[in-house]
Amino acid sequence: MHLPDRFRKLWDELAPIGRDAQSGGYLRYGWSPAELTCRQWFGEQAARRGMAVEEDGNGNLFAWWGSPEQGDAVLTGSHFDSVPHGGAYDGPLGVVSAFLAVDELRQRGVTPRRPLAVAAFAEEEGSRFGVPCLGSRLLTGAIDAGRAAALVDRDGISLTEAMGGPPAGARLDLLHRFTTFVELHVEQGRALADLDAPVGVASAIWPHGRWRFDFRGEGNHAGTTRMADRRDPMLTYAFTVLAANKEARLRGAHATVGRVEVEPNATNAIPSLVRGWLDARAADTDTLDGLVDAVRKKVAERAARDGTTVAVAAESVTPLVAFHAELSERLRALLAAPLLPTGAGHDAGVLSAHLPTAMLFVRNPTGVSHSPAEAATDEDCAAGVVALSVVLEQLTCL
Amino acid sequence: MHLPDRFRKLWDELAPIGRDAQSGGYLRYGWSPAELTCRQWFGEQAARRGMAVEEDGNGNLFAWWGSPEQGDAVLTGSHFDSVPHGGAYDGPLGVVSAFLAVDELRQRGVTPRRPLAVAAFAEEEGSRFGVPCLGSRLLTGAIDAGRAAALVDRDGISLTEAMGGPPAGARLDLLHRFTTFVELHVEQGRALADLDAPVGVASAIWPHGRWRFDFRGEGNHAGTTRMADRRDPMLTYAFTVLAANKEARLRGAHATVGRVEVEPNATNAIPSLVRGWLDARAADTDTLDGLVDAVRKKVAERAARDGTTVAVAAESVTPLVAFHAELSERLRALLAAPLLPTGAGHDAGVLSAHLPTAMLFVRNPTGVSHSPAEAATDEDCAAGVVALSVVLEQLTCL
Repeated sequence: MHLPDRFRKLWDELAPIGRDAQSGGYLRYGWSPAELTCRQWFGEQAARRGMAVEEDGNGNLFAWWGSPEQGDAVLTGSHFDSVPHGGAYDGPLGVVSAFLAVDELRQRGVTPRRPLAVAAFAEEEGSRFGVPCLGSRLLTGAIDAGRAAALVDRDGISLTEAMGGPPAGARLDLLHRFTTFVELHVEQGRALADLDAPVGVASAIWPHGRWRFDFRGEGNHAGTTRMADRRDPMLTYAFTVLAANKEARLRGAHATVGRVEVEPNATNAIPSLVRGWLDARAADTDTLDGLVDAVRKKVAERAARDGTTVAVAAESVTPLVAFHAELSERLRALLAAPLLPTGAGHDAGVLSAHLPTAMLFVRNPTGVSHSPAEAATDEDCAAGVVALSVVLEQLTCL
Repeated sequence: MHLPDRFRKLWDELAPIGRDAQSGGYLRYGWSPAELTCRQWFGEQAARRGMAVEEDGNGNLFAWWGSPEQGDAVLTGSHFDSVPHGGAYDGPLGVVSAFLAVDELRQRGVTPRRPLAVAAFAEEEGSRFGVPCLGSRLLTGAIDAGRAAALVDRDGISLTEAMGGPPAGARLDLLHRFTTFVELHVEQGRALADLDAPVGVASAIWPHGRWRFDFRGEGNHAGTTRMADRRDPMLTYAFTVLAANKEARLRGAHATVGRVEVEPNATNAIPSLVRGWLDARAADTDTLDGLVDAVRKKVAERAARDGTTVAVAAESVTPLVAFHAELSERLRALLAAPLLPTGAGHDAGVLSAHLPTAMLFVRNPTGVSHSPAEAATDEDCAAGVVALSVVLEQLTCL
């Protein structure tokens, strides 16, 4: 068996699609030419394997090994779309591994008793229309189809326009054909590297959310306004960045301020408005709430000292997603792989509200994610394919 | 004498030009339709007073009372252009007051022995082409005309295109006709309000500069990257904002970080790059250097702890401009007005390198500048006109 070679072959076909020569990262937004080319590739891979492709009216693709009508099916797969200048593995690794796992099963002469489908979900990153896991949310009805239809990208193009028609919305008829979903994904941290394990099993997705902080002060001349007369919202913003970092470290949680907008954003002007977004995640809801509350309290005190005001709006808060405990434990035992939580959202998190769901992670030696520096060795990717094939054999044959 | 009424009349003519209804501030960039309308108004005011208008090939206008050829002339005036959403007084007050001072002198039957010119300088704020005092720098040769010609605005329009031809550059023939320049300007702080004085005389422009700080770290996933594994340049940036503020307060100096750029500037991404601009000003060069050195040193230490790098580039540093001591003292005694320094640059700062130059400030009760909240009462503006007329009478008749 030369899995690295077979893995490399499929990987090399995908590699040039939507790759930015400058950054080495990918620009594959939902329904962009690059992402549509990936979907075409999906169709070709399915056809080569005699798998019929079904589109669910929401941009999600399903390639069937066995009859959809039989029901009781096992689903695997991931997504093609990327964040701006994202890495090669985030998403595509789960789709490529799924097709190679099918090859593995066939090569081993496995005849599944239950149907198996390979999925490619649409717009998982939410980089074009701002809603992560848009495809799986539409499929499951977690987002209203009418609301989704009216979402617009930065160029003012609506989802309906991008899709060439309105999304179908909830497809429970399709969803109910599946009894299990397993998503394979590149790890987005260094836990497996530290554990010296090529593959791991997800226990849960940390509760996480985004909070918008609007800091308002008084726009004024940077050269002539005495320090004592200032009401500078940049100071309160800067304090917030450092306070969030400190509070997260104290709690073993994650806090990031990665986005900021300033008015007027001029070198010689004290800003009138600074707007910052806090991304916070923790192992449990109490820790997350405690973190955000502590930041809010400290920032309110600081704002009073700075003569500024701060308004905080929770833009989205996602509770803990615990993956199916029995299924995850079964996979962990089967693969002798470590169990680990993740701070990132996934289509598996959306589907887990509807059917037993698990995730496999493949080691990422850099631990870097959403960046061209994201990595995985061919050997570890092959180990992921083997692990996925073992899991799918168990799930489809028992 | 009803100067507030006469003042109000001219003021009301200018008020609607380039005013943004939403903010109440002005959008009068150099060679924009609004600024060109102001220049047209300048021509009308000059014509009404029988003053011949001369354009210097750099966008600067001069309205002459008396013959330019006579030489030994006195210059007064300011600028029309504004920062984005700037106040009504910054610039135009000096032009309006100059025309009203001419009216005052004539009403009092004063016959100047030396010519008097009223100036409107181009692009003083540098809001369109990025170079403050562009008109006066061109006139004096402080900026190379070829370099200036190639400056482009945010829409990619060059100065040459905006002007309808390349700037003339240094016009020493014109400059040498003047022996004195007095610029009247609204105060940009609250010193006169605290001193309970309607008018003051400038002693100096503080040395000031802009330093660009490039903070580089590692772009990564906000949800999955452990705090200990991060190299987050936003932390170093936030530290810099607070350190600059503290170091400035310790020294009685001014420091502002009002502009920031972030890559990729996404809520769920640890930035790879944060770029911040420090605007720093102090009463003397040693204090300014000490401030910037202290910030650089502290930030370098912090960057080492954050695992980031910082590169600092001085984008522009302007040394102390001490206005002509004898002239300023003469004005101070004549007007019984206080002497005060300023942290802002002016065309008077550029011209002071070439001829005895002074500035008068008119009280700004809010102390706010570069904002619609900038203010001056009609009575104080009238006091400014009277003060300027007294000064011009002295300078042109002695």
